[in-house]
Amino acid sequence: MIIGAGFAGIACARRLGDRGVSVTLVDRHNYNQFQPLLYQVATAQVASANVARPLREVFRRHPTVEVKLACVSAVAPATKTVTCVDGTTFHGDYLVLAAGSQPHYFDTPGADTHAFPLYALADAERLRSRIFEVFEDADRDRSVIAKGALNIVVVGGGPTGVETAGALADLVREVMPSRYHDLDVAAARVTLVDPAHIVLSGFSTRAQAYAAQALRSKGVDLELGVKVSDIAADRVTLSDGRQILTRTVVWAGGIRPAGVIGNAGIAAGHGGRIDVQPDLTVAGFDGIYALGDAANTRAADGTMLPLLGSVAVQAGRCVADNILADIAGSPRSPFRYRDKGIMAMIGRNAAIFEIGRRRRELHGVLAFGAWLGVHAWLLSGFRERATALWAWGWDYFTRNRAPSIIGPDAERIDWQDTTSTGT
Amino acid sequence: MIIGAGFAGIACARRLGDRGVSVTLVDRHNYNQFQPLLYQVATAQVASANVARPLREVFRRHPTVEVKLACVSAVAPATKTVTCVDGTTFHGDYLVLAAGSQPHYFDTPGADTHAFPLYALADAERLRSRIFEVFEDADRDRSVIAKGALNIVVVGGGPTGVETAGALADLVREVMPSRYHDLDVAAARVTLVDPAHIVLSGFSTRAQAYAAQALRSKGVDLELGVKVSDIAADRVTLSDGRQILTRTVVWAGGIRPAGVIGNAGIAAGHGGRIDVQPDLTVAGFDGIYALGDAANTRAADGTMLPLLGSVAVQAGRCVADNILADIAGSPRSPFRYRDKGIMAMIGRNAAIFEIGRRRRELHGVLAFGAWLGVHAWLLSGFRERATALWAWGWDYFTRNRAPSIIGPDAERIDWQDTTSTGT
Repeated sequence: MIIGAGFAGIACARRLGDRGVSVTLVDRHNYNQFQPLLYQVATAQVASANVARPLREVFRRHPTVEVKLACVSAVAPATKTVTCVDGTTFHGDYLVLAAGSQPHYFDTPGADTHAFPLYALADAERLRSRIFEVFEDADRDRSVIAKGALNIVVVGGGPTGVETAGALADLVREVMPSRYHDLDVAAARVTLVDPAHIVLSGFSTRAQAYAAQALRSKGVDLELGVKVSDIAADRVTLSDGRQILTRTVVWAGGIRPAGVIGNAGIAAGHGGRIDVQPDLTVAGFDGIYALGDAANTRAADGTMLPLLGSVAVQAGRCVADNILADIAGSPRSPFRYRDKGIMAMIGRNAAIFEIGRRRRELHGVLAFGAWLGVHAWLLSGFRERATALWAWGWDYFTRNRAPSIIGPDAERIDWQDTTSTGT
Repeated sequence: MIIGAGFAGIACARRLGDRGVSVTLVDRHNYNQFQPLLYQVATAQVASANVARPLREVFRRHPTVEVKLACVSAVAPATKTVTCVDGTTFHGDYLVLAAGSQPHYFDTPGADTHAFPLYALADAERLRSRIFEVFEDADRDRSVIAKGALNIVVVGGGPTGVETAGALADLVREVMPSRYHDLDVAAARVTLVDPAHIVLSGFSTRAQAYAAQALRSKGVDLELGVKVSDIAADRVTLSDGRQILTRTVVWAGGIRPAGVIGNAGIAAGHGGRIDVQPDLTVAGFDGIYALGDAANTRAADGTMLPLLGSVAVQAGRCVADNILADIAGSPRSPFRYRDKGIMAMIGRNAAIFEIGRRRRELHGVLAFGAWLGVHAWLLSGFRERATALWAWGWDYFTRNRAPSIIGPDAERIDWQDTTSTGT
């Protein structure tokens, strides 16, 4: 019984399915999304279909893997029973908690109402609609530019925030001017806010400096060492009292485990995630595993591993192997993470890779090519891989953005709606 | 001033833009959709991004063409002024009415509430979500199969209805069985209902017989010579009193002009459309043109032309030429339609083409290849063309359906909601 069909859940189900083990995989979507590329959906670099794979297609040749579309409402670890919102229950001999994350707003007022998170495919589509809509609104009525129509604020300087800000800057600088023949696109500002004095805190000092420099050269305003204290419909207030008028606030400020993990009656560790033992089991429970963004996973030397797709995939395989060991009555093995490195793509001509203590900054076509190769390799569905590759190559040379569609999900902006503030 | 960025509006704007004429093109979407392929979006054969082109991308190199995203609420032909829902007004020396169609339910009770039309991209995505959702619901809870979960009813036997029914039958027969390992997919029924005793009434008798035969061989139930008299949340009632339990009713039963055309104070002709003169001007008004699905366009011999993309494109160019003639003070030319033929694709291995009195039925790979070529040629954005070709080819050989995503637009079905009827 696996909850969550992200990187971790799929890797686990696939390996168990390969060995003919009966698996029930529950997710509230009927597709697996390639999370690291959601910011590209938001900036119209790839289409939604390219970063989503139908789960049933993934397990088409795994007859023992049963995919169930259901929203889990409660988990009972003692009985290994899962209850869904429609009342359906599922049960397994082993329970794998891989329910992933949700945005964490740290009680920032207005964040849950006005900010656009970037954690699900629907989030990315909503953000895309908003970005293209503010430009359309400004083109129809220039007066809204003074109300911040063309300003975008990205909250958070981690990889997601940096990649999103870079991609937004590229979009504004390279795509929009040719589309809006007589709109002053240069009035558009992309601002990245982070309480730390650096971006990419998990990376090396040199990489941090490089990323900040790359963002600035693209015209991104970096507001570092300052917090976002309030998000309203029409503006962001910083902790030093300054305000930025905007209708587009991207939340890349943090994540926390999905609610169902917090309510499972398992003690929460750092970040609300489940502390797991070296073999990825949950202490005090029998036959329960936790992994991916739901768990605090440690490397062999005891250091905490980052919440990365590559960690989740490897952990998923480890859990599968340990369940197979449980079934066979053999001892479980501890999780050993093989470092695949960390990377960040800052717009289309700058990228950073770090593996262990090695570090590589790449520029221009080389950066794009390297990043393209790694991600295309990671996109495990073949059709998506080839189509996305095609789209990326095409965009790189033409600066075209085919999927820039304002969807039916777009909420129209009321430009008269101004928050009454003392400023 | 052009209202509507469909086949007609875009062809007209493009030609005027080529000659440096100032054009304002208003549409309520920021993209142009390739309508003939919406049924393929609904059946997950192509992704939304492949049938939609951002309007600003289309006119990127036409500095005199101003695209405006706005929903037109009123048209004043006398002053050639257009008012939008947000109060913005636009004015032109010439007014081109190319606002297209909307579904026409002929007062069928429940149709506007419960049926899925197939006229806009959002319609196609909603229908796709519903189709994949009923299968998921049935997989989670077998009892809903008896409530018609796996039944799909297509209303209308024209090209859209026939193509949709064929594509649905292929989806159910060729894609679903490998995805649902232990669901009785054979229980799924696709039914096509049309009051005529034939399908494809605009085609030759032989083509009609061929299409009916092709649909039947795919397992489509043809209910011909009978009307749909009522559509409820959980069933369709036919005019002979029989009922089909279903949660998925596709409306391909008719279209009528967009509301704004009907309210413009211009006398409506057959089907509510505007009767135009041979040069596509509207009688009694100066400098007003109507074309595409908004107009009753006639061939040189006086016969009414069908509402086809190829008619709309050619009419768009004719209107542009006539406006250029107006500006130059030279006489306008009458519209002469060059017959590009009509076609219908019945699933992936049967197609019909007719040009004038020539007729061609194609089977198997040949049918697919010919149809592919024609549509790929018509898809005028290059990226979409290549990507869609790739996807079609891939699907044809693998029977994969990558974009089968249940979107956030999906309305969850209440399976307890049963209409109280006497039957």
